[in-house]
Amino acid sequence: MEKTIPEKGPITDDLIDRMNRWWRAANYLSACQLYLLDNPLLKKPLTMDMIKKKIVGHWGTVPGQNFIFTHLNRAIKRYDLDLILLSGPGHGGNFFIANDYLDGSYSEIYPNISQDEEGMQKLFKQFSFPGGVPSHCAPETPGSIHEGGELGYSLAHGCGAVFDNPDLIAAVIVGDGEAETGPLATSWHINKFINPVGDGAVLPIMNLNGYKIANPTVFGRMSHQELVDFFHGCGWEPYFVEGDDPIPMHKKMAETMDIVIEKIKAIQEHARKTGDTTRPVWPMIVLRSPKGWTGPKVVDGQRIEGNFLAHQVPIMMDKPEHLQILSDWLHSYKPEELFDEDGHLLPDIASLAPEGDHRIGMNPHANGGKLLHDLRMPDFRDYAFDIGHHGEKDSMDTMNLGAFIRDIFKLNEKEKNFRIFSPDENNSNRFYDVFDVTNRDWNSTLHDDDDCLAPDGRVMDSMLSEHMCEGWLEGYLLTGRHGFFDTYEAFSRIIDSMASQHAKWLKVCNQLPWRESIASLNLMMCSTVWQQDHNGFTHQDPGFMDHMANKKADVVRIYLPPDTNCLLSTMDHCLRSRDYVNVIVASKHPRPQWLSMPEAVKHCTQGIGIWDWASNDQGQDPDIVFACAGETPTLEALAAVSILREELPDLKIRFINVVDLFKLQPNNEHPHGLTDEEYDMLFTKDKPVVFNFHGYAKLIHELTYRRHNNRLMHVRGYKEEGTITTPFDVRVQNHVDRFHLVQAALKYLPELGNRGAYLYQKMSDKLVEHKQYIHEYGVDMPEITNWKWKDNQ
Amino acid sequence: MEKTIPEKGPITDDLIDRMNRWWRAANYLSACQLYLLDNPLLKKPLTMDMIKKKIVGHWGTVPGQNFIFTHLNRAIKRYDLDLILLSGPGHGGNFFIANDYLDGSYSEIYPNISQDEEGMQKLFKQFSFPGGVPSHCAPETPGSIHEGGELGYSLAHGCGAVFDNPDLIAAVIVGDGEAETGPLATSWHINKFINPVGDGAVLPIMNLNGYKIANPTVFGRMSHQELVDFFHGCGWEPYFVEGDDPIPMHKKMAETMDIVIEKIKAIQEHARKTGDTTRPVWPMIVLRSPKGWTGPKVVDGQRIEGNFLAHQVPIMMDKPEHLQILSDWLHSYKPEELFDEDGHLLPDIASLAPEGDHRIGMNPHANGGKLLHDLRMPDFRDYAFDIGHHGEKDSMDTMNLGAFIRDIFKLNEKEKNFRIFSPDENNSNRFYDVFDVTNRDWNSTLHDDDDCLAPDGRVMDSMLSEHMCEGWLEGYLLTGRHGFFDTYEAFSRIIDSMASQHAKWLKVCNQLPWRESIASLNLMMCSTVWQQDHNGFTHQDPGFMDHMANKKADVVRIYLPPDTNCLLSTMDHCLRSRDYVNVIVASKHPRPQWLSMPEAVKHCTQGIGIWDWASNDQGQDPDIVFACAGETPTLEALAAVSILREELPDLKIRFINVVDLFKLQPNNEHPHGLTDEEYDMLFTKDKPVVFNFHGYAKLIHELTYRRHNNRLMHVRGYKEEGTITTPFDVRVQNHVDRFHLVQAALKYLPELGNRGAYLYQKMSDKLVEHKQYIHEYGVDMPEITNWKWKDNQ
Repeated sequence: MEKTIPEKGPITDDLIDRMNRWWRAANYLSACQLYLLDNPLLKKPLTMDMIKKKIVGHWGTVPGQNFIFTHLNRAIKRYDLDLILLSGPGHGGNFFIANDYLDGSYSEIYPNISQDEEGMQKLFKQFSFPGGVPSHCAPETPGSIHEGGELGYSLAHGCGAVFDNPDLIAAVIVGDGEAETGPLATSWHINKFINPVGDGAVLPIMNLNGYKIANPTVFGRMSHQELVDFFHGCGWEPYFVEGDDPIPMHKKMAETMDIVIEKIKAIQEHARKTGDTTRPVWPMIVLRSPKGWTGPKVVDGQRIEGNFLAHQVPIMMDKPEHLQILSDWLHSYKPEELFDEDGHLLPDIASLAPEGDHRIGMNPHANGGKLLHDLRMPDFRDYAFDIGHHGEKDSMDTMNLGAFIRDIFKLNEKEKNFRIFSPDENNSNRFYDVFDVTNRDWNSTLHDDDDCLAPDGRVMDSMLSEHMCEGWLEGYLLTGRHGFFDTYEAFSRIIDSMASQHAKWLKVCNQLPWRESIASLNLMMCSTVWQQDHNGFTHQDPGFMDHMANKKADVVRIYLPPDTNCLLSTMDHCLRSRDYVNVIVASKHPRPQWLSMPEAVKHCTQGIGIWDWASNDQGQDPDIVFACAGETPTLEALAAVSILREELPDLKIRFINVVDLFKLQPNNEHPHGLTDEEYDMLFTKDKPVVFNFHGYAKLIHELTYRRHNNRLMHVRGYKEEGTITTPFDVRVQNHVDRFHLVQAALKYLPELGNRGAYLYQKMSDKLVEHKQYIHEYGVDMPEITNWKWKDNQ
Repeated sequence: MEKTIPEKGPITDDLIDRMNRWWRAANYLSACQLYLLDNPLLKKPLTMDMIKKKIVGHWGTVPGQNFIFTHLNRAIKRYDLDLILLSGPGHGGNFFIANDYLDGSYSEIYPNISQDEEGMQKLFKQFSFPGGVPSHCAPETPGSIHEGGELGYSLAHGCGAVFDNPDLIAAVIVGDGEAETGPLATSWHINKFINPVGDGAVLPIMNLNGYKIANPTVFGRMSHQELVDFFHGCGWEPYFVEGDDPIPMHKKMAETMDIVIEKIKAIQEHARKTGDTTRPVWPMIVLRSPKGWTGPKVVDGQRIEGNFLAHQVPIMMDKPEHLQILSDWLHSYKPEELFDEDGHLLPDIASLAPEGDHRIGMNPHANGGKLLHDLRMPDFRDYAFDIGHHGEKDSMDTMNLGAFIRDIFKLNEKEKNFRIFSPDENNSNRFYDVFDVTNRDWNSTLHDDDDCLAPDGRVMDSMLSEHMCEGWLEGYLLTGRHGFFDTYEAFSRIIDSMASQHAKWLKVCNQLPWRESIASLNLMMCSTVWQQDHNGFTHQDPGFMDHMANKKADVVRIYLPPDTNCLLSTMDHCLRSRDYVNVIVASKHPRPQWLSMPEAVKHCTQGIGIWDWASNDQGQDPDIVFACAGETPTLEALAAVSILREELPDLKIRFINVVDLFKLQPNNEHPHGLTDEEYDMLFTKDKPVVFNFHGYAKLIHELTYRRHNNRLMHVRGYKEEGTITTPFDVRVQNHVDRFHLVQAALKYLPELGNRGAYLYQKMSDKLVEHKQYIHEYGVDMPEITNWKWKDNQ
């Protein structure tokens, strides 16, 4: 039987009054977090020594967000909702903390911040204070999966959260500043990808307070009709709640909230009963309220409330007379009507809070590790490519991986906790096999000729936006699921900042015991710098590895599997891992396959190793070490070694391949790093090393900076040369090809004398021959395309 | 008197017929570029040896773009327009080349590609062929300022181009794939920033062909009403041209083109006559036409025209029977009706082309260096900050720079060729003074309390989008003007990929003699990693330098001016420079000022140098070298040196500051690099160096990798530690503070024995004292905040 609590019933004046007092309490707590060191209940007159010496934080966005939080709480109770909240505006994390504190979530997670006067004092002091908590929503904020630093990703995160969570609503507050960013602007199209049967709902709530840091907002100055048209055009039904008088605004907002929640439920019920998944027009709310609502009206003759000046701290404490304004402002919330003598929230207000895990701060979806289940994984060894002897057969690594991914979809069909993400590139990256078992997600109009599109597809590749793919995946992982993002290597740079922010999020979560582990963010760089037949110079950028290598060593991993079997082993590992950003550089082109599955497992487990079948220094010191990382550099390094071994059979060569890039770094800098002893065992202390690398050479320089023989390490990598030309010619232009590599080795081997000089000249001749051939025919010489490694040569 | 050429008059059937033949010719040339090595006029039966062995390029987007180009040509002639074209769809650069070739632009710029049979054969062969031209629009494409690689920036570039070009129209073809990217999605708001009096017009033409690589497009499957609403909501008046029957489509398009051009002219005339700049509703065109229009209908049983399969090469030549399909397709354009026996375009078609610089391929705005005038610059020395003695006074570098920038605005008021760009951060970055002479650009509704907003403002900071700022600036520079982009350092990463693409563009332009030099892209990193009072961990990322350092040395420059006078000198240099990407890391917080203007000029001219007033090794070998780059690291390095000199007066210290980061790199790797001899003179060959760096340490490691004493170089930099805390504490957490630096130096000076040990312990005590103090008070110890360098200590 339904409990007879008022929040379940009609919107009465009493209910509105209590909600208004919750809102006042939240505003009070938010404002005090900015300012107060002490006197949390204002029992004593406010004096300067109770004020923080440095006041850092934001106010402008806070009251509007508190208003929304208050109303979401009522909706959660009234409709027994499973609802999380994402705060897009970025600034003003004090609002989220205030509401978490009011409903008890905060004190449950941080017992030191108790729900009493003492706890309140600590709550205020810790905010935006050294050793305390950040001023934006952050990993430290219970109930948040969205950091309030960089703007633009709230709707993408919210949408990722509701995929495969049919009973979840993600309420997403979109700031009108945030709405001007590119990623947010295109996020309005998420409704074309949400399946009303299998997915939950996103409820966007645009808080149109009209201003950003120092300017009005674009949306704040559009006409009402333009706003309506814009949202209709994007496929939403907007409901407007506009004004500044609290009580009427509460009534309007409560009524609107009921309408939109009931509309969401009706859409879902219809689709789930009938199976009709025709794209619904989902509701959304536009809340137009003053920036800094209820804050100081005028300070130093300048209008604050309803103006951009409310953005940060609305009253700086640089003038004595400001103390009175601050005191008046804080007293205006009448804390004595909200909290008892001991600082407990009065029971008739407190009863507005949802209970247990229904509280926004405690919703397990916002601490996704709580809901995380291991993926059911097939044995990746079963997908082994039979290589014959080393390098005998060609195959396409990502295409082969597709079968493994297909079966992960199959095994987790019931759990629905795995998706893959790609900006219109699933086929380009050759994961063809996945379409045997699932489709592309598409909840818009379908035509007869459409290729593998369906509303319940699990391949998120039908939106051409790297930002959306990354944002969706982050939201999906943060709520306890699994997946990966495959993208053209060069265009991974589009999400540099997003990946960086996620790495930062993970780093902080690692320090918070209550944040449960989540699946790693797996970013697969496909269609790499080394083969861009159609695309050329603009599609060449292997620098994402450099970018990620700057992040904390306990968060980032970089893998360069050189063939199919290594890629299978690597992906198996990455998909099982937790709390990392894994960068996987993978090949999609037909390439020689080097390692049998047992060899690949051993090699990937070690992360780096000598390929003895390619070396001829067994039992002896090598004269030179060839090392490589990445599929194309490995191919060329092997080809170079085969030339050297044929031409100079007495030369002792050691061949090393690196899969796990951080093996190169010392073990005191990265947990995967080799000790100096281990490193020296491989690379020697005093022999020249020619290192052929997938990316920019400087990353290898940096990783091996402190190694003994770094002076003898010669690194080849991409150096921004080459556009549309043959695959081999791009290598030639960047000097990572076999002929240049042989020449590089010869420079370290002066003892070869004339034999070296003749071979050097022979390589130069080959390079000229190559240039002439492609100029004539537009394709590579048969000698290159037909080249095969000869085992036991 | 107006010439009586038909293109000036009504849209007759004859005109339409000729336009259709131009379009056929363009389609023919575009298709042949994909396939043919020879037989350019199809005089002989097509055989496989006439076909390229590897066919790389795109078709799907080509016919629609050719269609638009054809109609733009007529509009240019009819209305004497000054019009440039930006091709947003990315793929299909053959279309632009085809039209350039038809109107003679191509042969004027590349005489080897003549307008005859021989030239046509070369035109076809060179396309997407080794040593030839890229398959996307590229710097090589006459008339293009927009690279067709990465998607999303076409409208931003087009808008940047028309700022301060009142008579210019930028026609921007927006692909419906591109329209799904974030940057393009927010670009629809450009109409709030275009002043109908002082700026030109952007004419967006969305080519809704319905498909991207392997998927339908979001916009292609929205309802007509949603499209109308969307564009109305964004403030545009959309005109739809829809169909697939060429002749009626030509008529519709021609009529629509007249309507929109006349509407643009009417808007501008009204605003310019009346001064009424109320945001107009600008027209735009939605062209819904089949993907791969006029191409093969069906190949191997699959529908090609009007489907995503038309995206790339519509017929692969992997089956013998495809030769006939290809032949039929190419013959369908009836080249014999378009070109004479010698390959000349028939005169009645050729006469459709605009003349001279009115041709899209020859428009000087698209080769901006042709229009570039030097900025009028005040003497930056006049803005010198009087430092007193070294480090005596504090001041804010960017604030001081503001006066210089203000006067650049003043001096170029008439030329209107300078703007600055910033995502809502002009004031945050403290360029207050610019508002003495100009405003923020804002062509939307104005309110009374608005701060420095005006339709003719030259400060582009009222849109919160890094993508827009960067895109606008690029468009502005590419059309021959000047400016810079200042942004929070961490959020420069949002435009990593854009800056990278621009650097690639510049590299290629440097190799094209006909591309004139343009002003450098100046990117100022303000509000850096080292002080994020309000913002914390998410706002800390100095990696943009690393990112740019991977680009070609002849394009990229990085400057870290340590104080106001150095910043003035640096900016003066950067604003005068050409064809670079200049990264300038600048401080906005109150900081000690180190160098007098004469000292700063000398220091910045050298780019690196010994600060003798901070050193005490004059005439002797130093015991240790302190080096630094960046404002905060310089401050701390000087403070460390002052501790060492006070505590260990007999220790000989050399102090080096680096402004021009590439001075560190060997001169054979970067044109700014020091020779080894020069480097050793500064850093010694055998003395320890403690290098305190603004960014990640690895960049210094890399730049100095080949230097003699790299083993003795100890680099300190940001290592992803610290969130909201005091400014000094962030330094402490990353070990770039004075106390840790002294300890770092002591580790290299074992000969100090007990004296060193005691000082080491003293530094540890200081660090504990610091932690205790900020825990208590939330601000830094007075010893830190009041510290001053003592000259002649």
